[in-house]
Amino acid sequence: MSDTFVVIGGDAAGMSAASKAKREDPGLDVIVFEQGQWVSYAACGMPYYVKGEVNELENLVAMTPEQFREERDIDLRTGHEVVSIDPEGETVIVESDGEQFEQPYDDLLVGTGASANVPPFDGIGLDGVFTIHDMDEAGAIERYVTEQSPERAAIVGGGYVGVEMAEALSARGVDVALYEMLPHVLQPFGEPVAEIVEDHLRERDVDLRLDTAVSGFDGDGHVDRIALQDGEADPAEVVIVGVGVMPNVDLAEEAGIDLGSTGAIATDEYGRTSYENVYAAGDCAEARHVVTGEPDHVPLALTANRAGRAIGQTVTGSPTPTGDIAGTAIVKAFDLGAARTGVVDEERAREAGFEPVTVTITDESRADYYPGSEEIRITLVADRGSGRLLGGSVVGAEGAKRIDTVVMALHAGMTVTELQNADLAYAPPFSPVWDPVLTAAKVLQGQLE
Amino acid sequence: MSDTFVVIGGDAAGMSAASKAKREDPGLDVIVFEQGQWVSYAACGMPYYVKGEVNELENLVAMTPEQFREERDIDLRTGHEVVSIDPEGETVIVESDGEQFEQPYDDLLVGTGASANVPPFDGIGLDGVFTIHDMDEAGAIERYVTEQSPERAAIVGGGYVGVEMAEALSARGVDVALYEMLPHVLQPFGEPVAEIVEDHLRERDVDLRLDTAVSGFDGDGHVDRIALQDGEADPAEVVIVGVGVMPNVDLAEEAGIDLGSTGAIATDEYGRTSYENVYAAGDCAEARHVVTGEPDHVPLALTANRAGRAIGQTVTGSPTPTGDIAGTAIVKAFDLGAARTGVVDEERAREAGFEPVTVTITDESRADYYPGSEEIRITLVADRGSGRLLGGSVVGAEGAKRIDTVVMALHAGMTVTELQNADLAYAPPFSPVWDPVLTAAKVLQGQLE
Repeated sequence: MSDTFVVIGGDAAGMSAASKAKREDPGLDVIVFEQGQWVSYAACGMPYYVKGEVNELENLVAMTPEQFREERDIDLRTGHEVVSIDPEGETVIVESDGEQFEQPYDDLLVGTGASANVPPFDGIGLDGVFTIHDMDEAGAIERYVTEQSPERAAIVGGGYVGVEMAEALSARGVDVALYEMLPHVLQPFGEPVAEIVEDHLRERDVDLRLDTAVSGFDGDGHVDRIALQDGEADPAEVVIVGVGVMPNVDLAEEAGIDLGSTGAIATDEYGRTSYENVYAAGDCAEARHVVTGEPDHVPLALTANRAGRAIGQTVTGSPTPTGDIAGTAIVKAFDLGAARTGVVDEERAREAGFEPVTVTITDESRADYYPGSEEIRITLVADRGSGRLLGGSVVGAEGAKRIDTVVMALHAGMTVTELQNADLAYAPPFSPVWDPVLTAAKVLQGQLE
Repeated sequence: MSDTFVVIGGDAAGMSAASKAKREDPGLDVIVFEQGQWVSYAACGMPYYVKGEVNELENLVAMTPEQFREERDIDLRTGHEVVSIDPEGETVIVESDGEQFEQPYDDLLVGTGASANVPPFDGIGLDGVFTIHDMDEAGAIERYVTEQSPERAAIVGGGYVGVEMAEALSARGVDVALYEMLPHVLQPFGEPVAEIVEDHLRERDVDLRLDTAVSGFDGDGHVDRIALQDGEADPAEVVIVGVGVMPNVDLAEEAGIDLGSTGAIATDEYGRTSYENVYAAGDCAEARHVVTGEPDHVPLALTANRAGRAIGQTVTGSPTPTGDIAGTAIVKAFDLGAARTGVVDEERAREAGFEPVTVTITDESRADYYPGSEEIRITLVADRGSGRLLGGSVVGAEGAKRIDTVVMALHAGMTVTELQNADLAYAPPFSPVWDPVLTAAKVLQGQLE
């Protein structure tokens, strides 16, 4: 009898693992249990569906369940919820249509993902109050905006989901107010990015309420008001709550699988949990941070895809590390791109044992005499003692993908001097002679000397 | 008496060195001899002046001679030609206005640049036949096009200058034919790039004549015809010859300074020539290639700026390596960007002792469902035995700067596996989940296994 690889969760990590395992070992039984109906979808594309730039929700689906079944020969079962794991007995209990059954496994992948945080706001259950963390919710928001034609939207949370939804709803003709408890939006991107993004959001008529805590929502069935902790209230006929996500770890925790200090499932470099043949990957799992060397929880699509794929190789006999993460993120905010990687927060750098030195420069995206050049702001952080680069950010109307240069420097463990000597591409339509990242490195080098 | 740092040549390498040296040691006498009148200009911007996107030739000048003199306290002497170097006596002989004088130095930088190759074509001296390697020539081309309103241009050479000038002259309403001896344009970029660029040039009505050798030009005073070696001839009222450059090494060679195997001035990692206190940098000098570890001659702006700056530090007491080059280049061809780095030619890779494996993939620049996504083609080359990345290229309507990811991998000496594990930035408006460079690395990894 052939081995069985069971996967819990049919999104990025799960389907990547299932696909890779089946490709490497066509004789392997690969069973995926997905509690919902959607698999392998681009959650990051949902704001653009709401915005109207992506016409069909289905366009966000890379492959349908039928394609996985027929083209890849994966036993994908949607509407199947795994309700418990028995790691000693090497089985899972699965529930579907009210019936339960037991499924043995040789290897198991926990890819249960993450869920949107839902703070205990008053009125969170009112019609018109949404989180945006799955396809059904995205569909519901789009329908609500189309059917109710809200005049004013309240977005709670200035993270990347909040910023993207501000753009999406503005494009739909809704007046947008964005409420953020902290002094700045895009907190993980750092202040130099936030300042630029905030100015731009205001220019684009987003009513930006920083340092503003929300207490709840009012309305008669449908939401019509957002209430603030200072006692004030604003009209809002649609509300998006985007205040982060929590890893879905209940199933693992109940099975006695170790969680890490971040609250997500602890894994080794191969994605293995505290049980040898139980893996975890994607938004529910930790990954090692390339700068700190410590486990971290950064639930993003590429990490899930890469880890899933590596685990698919490992369970078929080619042990493959899941790879370190750098905490890289990029977000579009109207006409701006903002990106970050590594450790940009000085406090966090100090906690990790570094002595951070930070510089922020403003430069041009192209040669200054070349048409279409845009202002670009680069921040780099390095360790004073070793000169090692720790992280950075980029914000501007073009060139935010330049963050990848910094990402590569982090993976290589480069010093600022080494980064500064990189032979990056130059021609006037693409960059100044010294790419802005190099210019930032030069200035940072000066600070380190 | 303070030390004297003499610089020959007032362009990128020379002015970078002079500026950095003066900043590090304000007491140093810094004298720059420039035979022409232009200093510190962006030669790479000249096609865009001809095109009409840069209004004034002066816009290409980063700093004027007066600024260098007054703001940076550099003794910059334009119209001064160094006619000989005496490395034993540590002096140079300078000629200006027909007079000669001797100038002693403590440290000397040879930054004599490169000159456009001028093949012995018949009729090369006719009016309307131009190379494009200095500001006066760029000005002359622009005037000629404006005054003569040529109907048809012949561009000789399909390197980056030829491709850029094809775009520039097309934009001026001139019908452009481009003649290239080799089977492909942009030879150092490799065939996968060339094919895409060639299709695009044809779409943009450039009459592309590959495998076509030119013999000369005809006309009565003004050029009116280009003659081919096969005996044919085409009408052409303006001709641009862009068939590469040669390092200006006569001065150094006559002084007994060693040249390298490439024909450019040999230097060590600090830019020193065979004489301890004589440096060379920029288009006249060799630099070490990061992949082969061998000296190479890739005359480009960033290399010149960086080496000059490093030498400015070295001569003021902080020995600073000039940095390795990766042979990175990027060029705009109408609506396309094309870029390359490292070793992409398999023959050259074999000569350097590698066993090259090459893959070329076609992907999307953004998430495929996101508006504005463009096709992008990535080529990566790696060494079979070690898995080390050797080089790569990128071509597409957006995202050519992704070459910098490959550049960073080369500087870090990364394997394909390491590149594949880089946590590059993803969001739908900027990239597919797997950045195309990562996808190429995945495919290449498959070939290596």
